[in-house]
Amino acid sequence: MKQLESITPRDTDFARWYTDVVTKSGLTSYSNVKGCMIMPPYGNELWENMRDELGRRIKKTGAKNVTLPLLIPESMFQSEKDHVEGFAPEFLMVTHSGEEKLAERLVLRPTSEVLFCDYFKNNIHSYRDLPMKLNQWANIFRAEKNTRPFLRTTEFFWQEGHTMHETESEAREMTMQIHKLYNDYLVDTLALPFVEGKKTESEKFAGAVETWTREVMMYDGVALQTGTSHYLGDGFSKAFDITFQNKDKGLSHPHYTSWGITTRMIGAIVMTHGDDRGLILPPKVAPIQAVVVPIMMHKAGVLDAAKELEKSISKTLRTHIDTTDNTPGWKYSEWEMRGVPIRIEYGPRDIENKTCVVVRRDTGEKITIAVDALKDGLPHILEAIHENMYDRALKRQKKMTHKASTLEEIGEIARSKPGFIQAPWCGCEKSERMLKETISLTSRCILEEYPEDTKLKCAISGKQAKYLVVWAKAY
Amino acid sequence: MKQLESITPRDTDFARWYTDVVTKSGLTSYSNVKGCMIMPPYGNELWENMRDELGRRIKKTGAKNVTLPLLIPESMFQSEKDHVEGFAPEFLMVTHSGEEKLAERLVLRPTSEVLFCDYFKNNIHSYRDLPMKLNQWANIFRAEKNTRPFLRTTEFFWQEGHTMHETESEAREMTMQIHKLYNDYLVDTLALPFVEGKKTESEKFAGAVETWTREVMMYDGVALQTGTSHYLGDGFSKAFDITFQNKDKGLSHPHYTSWGITTRMIGAIVMTHGDDRGLILPPKVAPIQAVVVPIMMHKAGVLDAAKELEKSISKTLRTHIDTTDNTPGWKYSEWEMRGVPIRIEYGPRDIENKTCVVVRRDTGEKITIAVDALKDGLPHILEAIHENMYDRALKRQKKMTHKASTLEEIGEIARSKPGFIQAPWCGCEKSERMLKETISLTSRCILEEYPEDTKLKCAISGKQAKYLVVWAKAY
Repeated sequence: MKQLESITPRDTDFARWYTDVVTKSGLTSYSNVKGCMIMPPYGNELWENMRDELGRRIKKTGAKNVTLPLLIPESMFQSEKDHVEGFAPEFLMVTHSGEEKLAERLVLRPTSEVLFCDYFKNNIHSYRDLPMKLNQWANIFRAEKNTRPFLRTTEFFWQEGHTMHETESEAREMTMQIHKLYNDYLVDTLALPFVEGKKTESEKFAGAVETWTREVMMYDGVALQTGTSHYLGDGFSKAFDITFQNKDKGLSHPHYTSWGITTRMIGAIVMTHGDDRGLILPPKVAPIQAVVVPIMMHKAGVLDAAKELEKSISKTLRTHIDTTDNTPGWKYSEWEMRGVPIRIEYGPRDIENKTCVVVRRDTGEKITIAVDALKDGLPHILEAIHENMYDRALKRQKKMTHKASTLEEIGEIARSKPGFIQAPWCGCEKSERMLKETISLTSRCILEEYPEDTKLKCAISGKQAKYLVVWAKAY
Repeated sequence: MKQLESITPRDTDFARWYTDVVTKSGLTSYSNVKGCMIMPPYGNELWENMRDELGRRIKKTGAKNVTLPLLIPESMFQSEKDHVEGFAPEFLMVTHSGEEKLAERLVLRPTSEVLFCDYFKNNIHSYRDLPMKLNQWANIFRAEKNTRPFLRTTEFFWQEGHTMHETESEAREMTMQIHKLYNDYLVDTLALPFVEGKKTESEKFAGAVETWTREVMMYDGVALQTGTSHYLGDGFSKAFDITFQNKDKGLSHPHYTSWGITTRMIGAIVMTHGDDRGLILPPKVAPIQAVVVPIMMHKAGVLDAAKELEKSISKTLRTHIDTTDNTPGWKYSEWEMRGVPIRIEYGPRDIENKTCVVVRRDTGEKITIAVDALKDGLPHILEAIHENMYDRALKRQKKMTHKASTLEEIGEIARSKPGFIQAPWCGCEKSERMLKETISLTSRCILEEYPEDTKLKCAISGKQAKYLVVWAKAY
């Protein structure tokens, strides 16, 4: 019989805890290919559930799914200077077909702006064709030196939305509509709190005018960027010569947005919600929402009754029944480790009493419920778990967010307290770079823009402040 | 206003007809990348619908979805000799990361047997772990010299199932279960008839013991292989050193199956069902099942009434209403070209009479139906369209299937009549190769195995016959 493998405690070594949890729970496993991950059934189903719900929301915006090639001729990247400079070091290059050298090297897409622009060029003719809203679910490649499952992998998975609009204001509106859609998705579906706002100039997407982000605080206080939405202006349109006949019969360049959420999000779920027993999965996307563990399974009638119980709830929930030969205690640990939100214990005494014991993964709370009340009761318990997970994470985020107004304060906090630091900033890249190079703090997002006559001073340079910024170490 | 683009008639130039139809209907468009296709929204949605239904059927077999890397180290292919020999000429090679040369070349997966075997090696320990049934939806790469949309592309999309079993008989049963699943899927979902059976030795999958296929006859009489299911024996298990503790506490090698259906299937749909007006899509997967065309749209009340009509049927069907400024005639052509199974014409007189005109794409038949009866009636009409499409294609397949018993007859038929040829074969590769090299006929599948004492002679060699084989030109 397999033994339940032990997990390194979070406070002993958070990085090892993370690796233990994501591999032992079956979310991922290492492959023979450096930096490329495997998603076994459990991890794959989690991603499918996340994808289905996000996809449903994206379709509601009117965006249509398309499929564009993975391979991009290297020359296509040359059109937009900032863009190619941002991505070229991460290019993976196809150079040969069999033993034959290709006429031009092909890049495995690190993002698909250039291909979408080529598509837009061929398909946008008149203002009647706008807005054109497209989305793609795809695998993406960025050569990475140091990789970690989900957080930084050479191959990862995402959706990338690309939209073109008649006017700047429409495109900016779309950027914000998606920013809000991502915010809502994190709160409603993944129970993840965050701080959100615009990226600074140096942290925005290569080629964007403006990048909007949300940053989730992990258990160790480190930030994880989860989903970005870019307003790209008309730079790409000009570079790729995309024009449309406007309402005045003239030619205009459309305005561009792109936006994406990736498999990194799985890392955010693990490191926000997990505990020393393992994963805690948000009920709305958990591959198994409730697992039934029969007690004294080999006593006559128990297994059949437990199967019937599982069947009755499987119509409304994603369920599983553990009929292996392991002991109940072993099973409890196993399904806790794998983050199943609800465990249902059901044995001879329960059968006699027409009740069962429901155990919440988030709190460990045990609730005795009449079997008849289960079908209606479980969705409410799942909802309560979702809310508790969100509240708990938000509480931690608040507790671990510190305010600083001088460089000394920033340094002191950075040395002694993990988490986010809110501090005013003058907007100059020199001071931003200084924090990054000396104490590895990066600007995560701009929380607030101060009025022009503010008396507040930049915590770093001492000059007049322009923005309130969240600073943190980041994955 | 856009003009409806003309389509080359099928009998004038079938290849041009095909290209016209798949590009003008929005199923695909050419990309800047040689041999790699784009699926715009319409084509992408068709594939999504096909995928959803096939995926639902595959999940019912107990197979679980996983994700494995796209990049495979070249050395991993060396383990199985037949397999690498079959695929090496089609390898696309990643050699560089940025400007840095990789220590080992990486192959873009042309199929994933070697990665699945690595996964099985790490995850199969005991007979209790078997059967292990996995499936992956993925993009696949095979360098192709001559490419055609959907039929032969450098990047294509598929599902690939990979299963491991305790015994040969279980693995062979799985191979046949999937063979039947694919058969049912073609008949029930895509309205495609076919011939089916085992591949000959020279036509089977590189590394397989046995390959099962079905071959669909296109309008021009040429065969298209659509979905294969392989029994791979224990060759891969031995090559990759995959073992499990059997019930007698000894070590055994598990038996392997793999199977897949690809985006080629879209080509099969187009070339089986389409006509000179364009696509005819099978109702079960058509992105739009019924399109509403308002007549005299600018007359007061018509547009609102038409929208209401569409809304009322959109709960049970995938619908669209064409409110563009084009004329009704233009709209009819447009939606016929795009293969929408049902068109609903609705104008002032219809509104008055509380009826509407339903036009079938497959027959052109016009049916006047009471608006009240629409919601219940349309699903029956879609069903009738599906059946008629299947019957029509089957009738053509039968009509264009010819029997031959001598080489002269085969030659005569091949010269004068497109289609399938059924002819007895001795089983020797020499005669099979001869047909291929002289008149481009390949063995598509074995229909029947003759008894050992058969008096029948091989149509090619004149030796005693072993099999009844379907011979045809193939895409």
